[in-house]
Amino acid sequence: MEHQSNIFLILLLVLFSAKLFGEIFRKLSLPPVLGELLAGIILGPSALGWVELNEVLKLLAEIGIILLLFEVGFETDIKRLMQAGWMSVVVALAGFVLPFILGALVAYFLFDLDLIVSLFVGGTITATSIGITVRVLKDLGKRETLEGEIVVGAAVLDDILGVILLAVLYEFSKSNHVSFVEVSKVMLFIVGFFILAPIFAKIIAILIQRYHASNEIPGFLPTSIFMLVLFFGWLATALGAPEILGGFAAGLALSRRFFIPFGMALAAQDVGFTRRIEEEITPLVHLFTPFFFVAVGLSMNLRQIDWSSPTIWGLFGAVLLVAILGKVIGSMVLPLSWKKRLIVGVAMVPRGEVGLIFAEMGRTNAILDNVVYSALVLVIVVTTILPPFLIKLLYKEER
Amino acid sequence: MEHQSNIFLILLLVLFSAKLFGEIFRKLSLPPVLGELLAGIILGPSALGWVELNEVLKLLAEIGIILLLFEVGFETDIKRLMQAGWMSVVVALAGFVLPFILGALVAYFLFDLDLIVSLFVGGTITATSIGITVRVLKDLGKRETLEGEIVVGAAVLDDILGVILLAVLYEFSKSNHVSFVEVSKVMLFIVGFFILAPIFAKIIAILIQRYHASNEIPGFLPTSIFMLVLFFGWLATALGAPEILGGFAAGLALSRRFFIPFGMALAAQDVGFTRRIEEEITPLVHLFTPFFFVAVGLSMNLRQIDWSSPTIWGLFGAVLLVAILGKVIGSMVLPLSWKKRLIVGVAMVPRGEVGLIFAEMGRTNAILDNVVYSALVLVIVVTTILPPFLIKLLYKEER
Repeated sequence: MEHQSNIFLILLLVLFSAKLFGEIFRKLSLPPVLGELLAGIILGPSALGWVELNEVLKLLAEIGIILLLFEVGFETDIKRLMQAGWMSVVVALAGFVLPFILGALVAYFLFDLDLIVSLFVGGTITATSIGITVRVLKDLGKRETLEGEIVVGAAVLDDILGVILLAVLYEFSKSNHVSFVEVSKVMLFIVGFFILAPIFAKIIAILIQRYHASNEIPGFLPTSIFMLVLFFGWLATALGAPEILGGFAAGLALSRRFFIPFGMALAAQDVGFTRRIEEEITPLVHLFTPFFFVAVGLSMNLRQIDWSSPTIWGLFGAVLLVAILGKVIGSMVLPLSWKKRLIVGVAMVPRGEVGLIFAEMGRTNAILDNVVYSALVLVIVVTTILPPFLIKLLYKEER
Repeated sequence: MEHQSNIFLILLLVLFSAKLFGEIFRKLSLPPVLGELLAGIILGPSALGWVELNEVLKLLAEIGIILLLFEVGFETDIKRLMQAGWMSVVVALAGFVLPFILGALVAYFLFDLDLIVSLFVGGTITATSIGITVRVLKDLGKRETLEGEIVVGAAVLDDILGVILLAVLYEFSKSNHVSFVEVSKVMLFIVGFFILAPIFAKIIAILIQRYHASNEIPGFLPTSIFMLVLFFGWLATALGAPEILGGFAAGLALSRRFFIPFGMALAAQDVGFTRRIEEEITPLVHLFTPFFFVAVGLSMNLRQIDWSSPTIWGLFGAVLLVAILGKVIGSMVLPLSWKKRLIVGVAMVPRGEVGLIFAEMGRTNAILDNVVYSALVLVIVVTTILPPFLIKLLYKEER
């Protein structure tokens, strides 16, 4: 009893500081997610040392991140992606391949890091943060413009690519070498999972929808969806993929525009059901997600970092450069004005959840040491803070 | 990673079986809560032994029960209670005092149990389950009748009394004796907490409402309320009261009709805000609550019980008798027809959450042994299963 009530206090402290710093950052026009990260850094061994990352917090953090990836999948609009068409695809592919290769090359040749470490460095800077990007465009009232559609489409696509890459690298890291058979096997599993999981999830979702329609049971929907997400999280790991892929696949399957191939008519999902899912899952996502970002902050020990180390700052500068260039170069071929091209490129710069997951997974699996991990986290932080200001500036000049 | 994904599977198993058995019971017109209990019994050491009651499940169960008590408090309508007036008060007081005293006397004198054990036996059968009672009346379309109002008012009132009694007995159990000073101290703390906590919670709620109104932040409301509930759960234990009292006090403060005394005008809470709280908290309540009832089932080891023991069956029969009589006698003085009196009395019979919490707290604090605990759980189960059938029959005869 006493013990459990102490856990209550810890949960309260984590949630409250996450929301407090998130709010302060929001008021300062900074991404709240950085505030949540800071809350973890302050509560953890880096500063106050009040909260230890225990089993319960780790579990809540993992539930938080698969729920967040569920939401990202749920908000993915396959039709919109097709509308923005080849421009999104170009931006996504270039913005995925260039940072990955450039990042890995810089780490491997300039900083003499191991191959797997270099691949993780490249991987960390591949995926644009959908959440942050959409938020910035929305705040500026530019979400519905052509460049807005391109950016959202590309961010969705490179998130998928980033998650697949993460799974591939995770598999590599376990065998600690890069083999073609291994790659093919992992790709096959991931692609297989990615094709079958949403269909499987969709079928379950249809059953849930039908049961829900004929039996209005209070609380049936959120618990069912929560179970679906847990199930696909577990299924993904059972197949060797990271659990977040399960959350994403389940979300994708339940998104309004998702359809099962081969014209299965029963796949039609009414708007009311989609809205109900959104309404009932959003509170859960918002409750659990802060635990992930605070946990990331808690797991960092900034005291152990040698801040005078030129390696950290050198790696930070070099990776930041390729992280920005890698995203901007791809947009330069678009048939748009130079300003619009720059806007698209800069809007793709923020790295967020997927980057942090990459870095975090690299660290917990002892692939990234404190130096590389710290440099990467710094890169993510800076790529997240800068673009909102730059985009605002570019739109101002345009007028 | 592997480890966490196993926890996912356990959570999935717990939730799924809770919902499955809950649904089966619902289809059979039995209270779903009994199905959830059965799910725990089946998964636990009594039958399959697949799931162990670990720290994570215990925490989720505790969050579940304080959230449920929050909801009970939130649904408490102080004005409606006043409307049903003295009839509710008579039914509540008689239905609280008689089962408590009769239950304790039976246990103490007929079964030679210790004083504290006897008091827990009496306490377990004091509180009517609001949830089950309301559900039965709703299903029969009798929720809005006079007898419906009386029953709901009385159930609310004896739930409050039951929770206070639980806190008092919990305090006794720690010092293991009954002293007048102790009683007074606990009463003072509880009454003080009960008067101050809702006011304090109300003030925080008003701040939340104001902040929410001027800053439409997604996910602000459910997380704030969740934090409020955690805080009052912790505050209650810090003051020596059970944490569920904190959940209840916070819920009461946020209920629509709750007002701060001394005419504080700022206490006015608009209907929209109340509905928003309900919408955003309900998914959380439904997600976490099953963990509590499954955990209760998991914590029971029916294999260790000597089912041929005449003590269990004797105690079961005797306590069941006073549990039914104690609730029915009070309603006999009401100025209603005999049928209506019987309906009110029988509707008060179901024991649920508070009874299970009583029994559970008695067991985990080593006050109730397996024999007494099993007999009490049997009593709760039977009082919950019988009334729905009886009430249906009484209403049929009336026509």
